[in-house]
Order: sequence, then structure tokens, then C-alpha cells
Amino acid sequence: MRNIKLTIEYDGTKFCGWQIQAPNRRTVQGEIEKALKKIFHHPTKLFGSGRTDSGVHALGQVANFQTVSPLATAAIVKALNANLPEDISILNAVDVPLDFHAQFNAKRKTYRYIILNRKSRGCVRRQYEFYCSFPLDIQAMRKAAQCLKGRKDFRSFMATDPAAPKDKCKDTVRHIYRLQIKKQNDTIFVDIEANGFLYKMVRNIVGILLETGKKKILPNQVSRILSAQSRQASFSTAPAHGLTLIKVNY
Amino acid sequence: MRNIKLTIEYDGTKFCGWQIQAPNRRTVQGEIEKALKKIFHHPTKLFGSGRTDSGVHALGQVANFQTVSPLATAAIVKALNANLPEDISILNAVDVPLDFHAQFNAKRKTYRYIILNRKSRGCVRRQYEFYCSFPLDIQAMRKAAQCLKGRKDFRSFMATDPAAPKDKCKDTVRHIYRLQIKKQNDTIFVDIEANGFLYKMVRNIVGILLETGKKKILPNQVSRILSAQSRQASFSTAPAHGLTLIKVNY
Repeated sequence: MRNIKLTIEYDGTKFCGWQIQAPNRRTVQGEIEKALKKIFHHPTKLFGSGRTDSGVHALGQVANFQTVSPLATAAIVKALNANLPEDISILNAVDVPLDFHAQFNAKRKTYRYIILNRKSRGCVRRQYEFYCSFPLDIQAMRKAAQCLKGRKDFRSFMATDPAAPKDKCKDTVRHIYRLQIKKQNDTIFVDIEANGFLYKMVRNIVGILLETGKKKILPNQVSRILSAQSRQASFSTAPAHGLTLIKVNY
Repeated sequence: MRNIKLTIEYDGTKFCGWQIQAPNRRTVQGEIEKALKKIFHHPTKLFGSGRTDSGVHALGQVANFQTVSPLATAAIVKALNANLPEDISILNAVDVPLDFHAQFNAKRKTYRYIILNRKSRGCVRRQYEFYCSFPLDIQAMRKAAQCLKGRKDFRSFMATDPAAPKDKCKDTVRHIYRLQIKKQNDTIFVDIEANGFLYKMVRNIVGILLETGKKKILPNQVSRILSAQSRQASFSTAPAHGLTLIKVNY
């Protein structure tokens, strides 16, 4: 038996997220498992580092599967890409120890959220960045970001909707190693690296950063919201299409 | 009478290029003229800095139109964006002298061609970059680029197909001010700035740079092809979707 680790890029626009759901909903996991079945002629279960929501993109999602096939990893990459739709591309495949699990062994994840901040709406990159016409105060956003770094209880930033996975609701302490806000012309990049994320945590963090950027929330209120340890109605979840999973570290 | 200069971004993927053609072919000029008619209630002719081919994108196309409307330029931008499809965005509108003409007054244009050069095919940016799996020799490409800079007769790089506009076939001398090749991870950016371009000249230049990158043509052969002053069969035109019109200077 072999265990193969895949690095995957996908354009989330036309997917109902990563994880297989109802049979007629198009998911990234579903498409890759279909391609694996074509190549290996038997069902193969794929384990992702974590689900991504409908509309979220990935440049470096990681997943693993087990197989008895002797096919070389380069050939697996080629065969998968030949059998996958154009909005998924397998970047890499490597043999890993049998006990490697893409979800349970993940040590860090990095997400990037892209905001287009100008008077005219987006166009060429409209499916990969969130458009905000209201002028954002980058300095206020950076101050708010400071409050969120480090090891904290992020219960206030966890989605409370019924779709939230139950198993993720227990331990709500996470460690944000990096929360960086860069501006290039009209585009704002929010990079977040942590040891893990609660359900919709990145988009809720970006939501509150947007509110502070619009000066609807003061940067120091962010600490108060954090310590309240319950989801506030005062800020909204940033839309999915601005979010990209950049990297998973093991 | 007023003369208004527009700066326009568009995603060329679903357009049959800039210029109005047969009535049922979707063009950027056609869509903007439709929106202008909705706003001003009469037909308004739009003059672009030049046509872009089917599939070519723009971040800074320029066009102008005349109107008697007293509408403020900011309101024109808003009204146009409200009436345009999501793959066109008007970035700016300014009043210019009545004799300004987007095509005839253009002094320089900058195009960018994007090449994805890696083993796995593209995905997230697949509609905006050309995928080349063959490893490209950047140094050879840069040497070839050197031969093309300056004031030269580019007849060898002009398309000879019947669609070529007749008026552009006479004077084939152009001045390339900048031809820069940058590499960032797996992506190669070819930036070309010139006082004007012949029909399909940028894509033919990128075509020959790709051949030199693949070592099918030696960099010093490029000078010979240039001085032959006729279109060679030895290199192909790079695909349209990798090309973006970045800027027009006046």
C-alpha cells in the first residue's frame, strides 16, 4: 500500500466547495475522486487538509489518498490533470508515510484575502477579489489586525450557522502567526497564517477588518469583541470569492 | 459639444475583440456604445485607441466620444458601469479638447503577455495567461528581445492573414522603447512598450520569444528574421488570451 500526497490548485467559482455533499453538487473532492476512479479503476477516498467553502479558491490545497498502484508520481499528476476539468490542476504528487493524513498532520495554513478598493467596480479579477468602493483606512485595519495576532480564543469569529461542522465547535483557541495587510495600487492583500481556523474564521476576520477600514468599528473595539467570546452581529462575513487557500504546512 | 476620454478595463474572454463587427458578435465597443445610447438617448460613436483581437484583455484601453450632455464625468462613469456587463469596467472619464482622438493622438502603448511555465497546466489564471509546459530559457529569450528593441521595420512580425487591416500594411516601421522579460516563480511577464504596433505584432514577437526560449531558434537568428522583412513560417503567433493592453500614453 502507498500513501500519496497531492498539492492542488483550483478555481472555486463553479464549485460547491471542497467537500463531497449531495450527488448533484459539484465539489473539488468529488471531481478528483472521479478522476482517481478512472485512473485506478476502483473507488479511492481522498482526504483534504480541510474543507473550503463554496466559491473559495486554492493555490496550494493538500490532500492524500492510498493506493496499491505502482504508477510513478509524475504519471499520477499527468493522468489526473488529463482527467480533471480545467478549474482543477494537480501541481504535485509525492509518496508519504502510510500514517500521513492531510487534515490531522497539518501544522499551519496560510490564506490570502484580496480586496479591490477603488471607485470603479472590478473586472478582470472579479472572480478572485472582493470589490469594496468605500475608501478603506489601511492604518486602522493594521491596528485591528494587531489585536488578533497570537494565541487567542476565536469563538467570536466562528460562524454560528447550522452548516458549521459540529466537531470544530469545541476547542476554539487558535494561534495566528501572521496577519499582514499589504496594499498595491488599488488592491489590498490580507495574508493570514495560523495553526488552524474555525469555520468561516478567515472571512469573519476580514469582515471585521473591513468594518475598521470603513471606520465603523474602532481598532480597539476588536479586542473587546474577541474577549466577548460570542459571535457579534456588528460585523459581517466577507464574501467567499475573495478568499484563496495559499499553503498548508506539515 | 464636449469630448470625453474614457479609460477602460475589460476581460476579453467572452468578446470578439474591441471593434464592432457583424451585429450578433459581442464586442467591447459595441457594448459601450449600447450603454452610451441608454444614458444619452441617442447613438454615440466611440473611438478606441486601437482594436484588440478576440480574447485579448485590457487594464487601460482608452477611447473617446463626443456629447452635448452636461453630465459630470463622475456621473458618466457611474452610469456607464451601471449599464455595462461585468466584464467591462470604466475606470475613468475626463473632458479633453475637442480635437483629441484616442487613436490618432496615441503616442505609446504598453502590452503585457503572461506565460505560465510549469509542469502542471494553469488553473486560477487560465484565461489570462498562456500555459507552456516546455521549460523556457529566460536568458535566450532576453537575448532575442535585445535584437527587437529600438526603431526597426517589423514587417516580418506583421500578420499576413486576410483579416489584417489594409491601412496598417504601408508603414511597417515601429519603435520599441521597452521589451522586458521578468520571471516570478512559474510565471513569465513580457512587457512591450512601443509607439505603435502592427496587426498581431505583439503576439508574433511573443511567438518568436517562445521559440528562442525552447531553443528552437537561436537568439541571433531573430535579427536575421527581422531583416528578412517578410513573415516567416518558422514561428507561430502566441495565443490571444495571454495578452493584456496595459496602458496608452498621449
